[in-house]
Amino acid sequence: MSLNTLELIGEVVQIETLRYTPAGIPLLSFTLRHMSEQVEAGMQRKVECNVPVMAIGQIAEKAKHIQSGANLRVSGFIAQRSLKSTQLVLHINILEII
Amino acid sequence: MSLNTLELIGEVVQIETLRYTPAGIPLLSFTLRHMSEQVEAGMQRKVECNVPVMAIGQIAEKAKHIQSGANLRVSGFIAQRSLKSTQLVLHINILEII
Repeated sequence: MSLNTLELIGEVVQIETLRYTPAGIPLLSFTLRHMSEQVEAGMQRKVECNVPVMAIGQIAEKAKHIQSGANLRVSGFIAQRSLKSTQLVLHINILEII
Repeated sequence: MSLNTLELIGEVVQIETLRYTPAGIPLLSFTLRHMSEQVEAGMQRKVECNVPVMAIGQIAEKAKHIQSGANLRVSGFIAQRSLKSTQLVLHINILEII
């Protein structure tokens, strides 16, 4: 029961300043705007969504110079933002600037 | 700019009655509860989330007898629930009962 993988391409539309946990681990949050055409029930449809993304550790350091407008290909797992929130956040472990 | 694929395993925790669009296309909505351990920044962490799922067309017909408690492996793309909502919904094109 461990499969949880989201692969997504999108444009950075909002990015926060790199911050650190009390233990000194870097954290970076940004939002990816995704627009594409997907096939559903045999028909082509337009898809748009804003996906909150969280990068922790080395990948946050790698991403800290990214700016709004950058196009990224990312991969990771989805999780709830917090215990009390139903909002889904993509935690990435692969990031590629395209 | 089309990559948008979520693969997920989870337990059905809520399922709605099969309904039909005005054009007669079947629609089925349910919620998958996902619990797993994932690796982030080199550390194991617990992940829990409830993911809204939408099945349209043949896959909705296939899924209509699924009950709460069923364990599923699904794959599809994520999209916003509606123009005005930021909630993410997984639209599936692969469903497997496990």
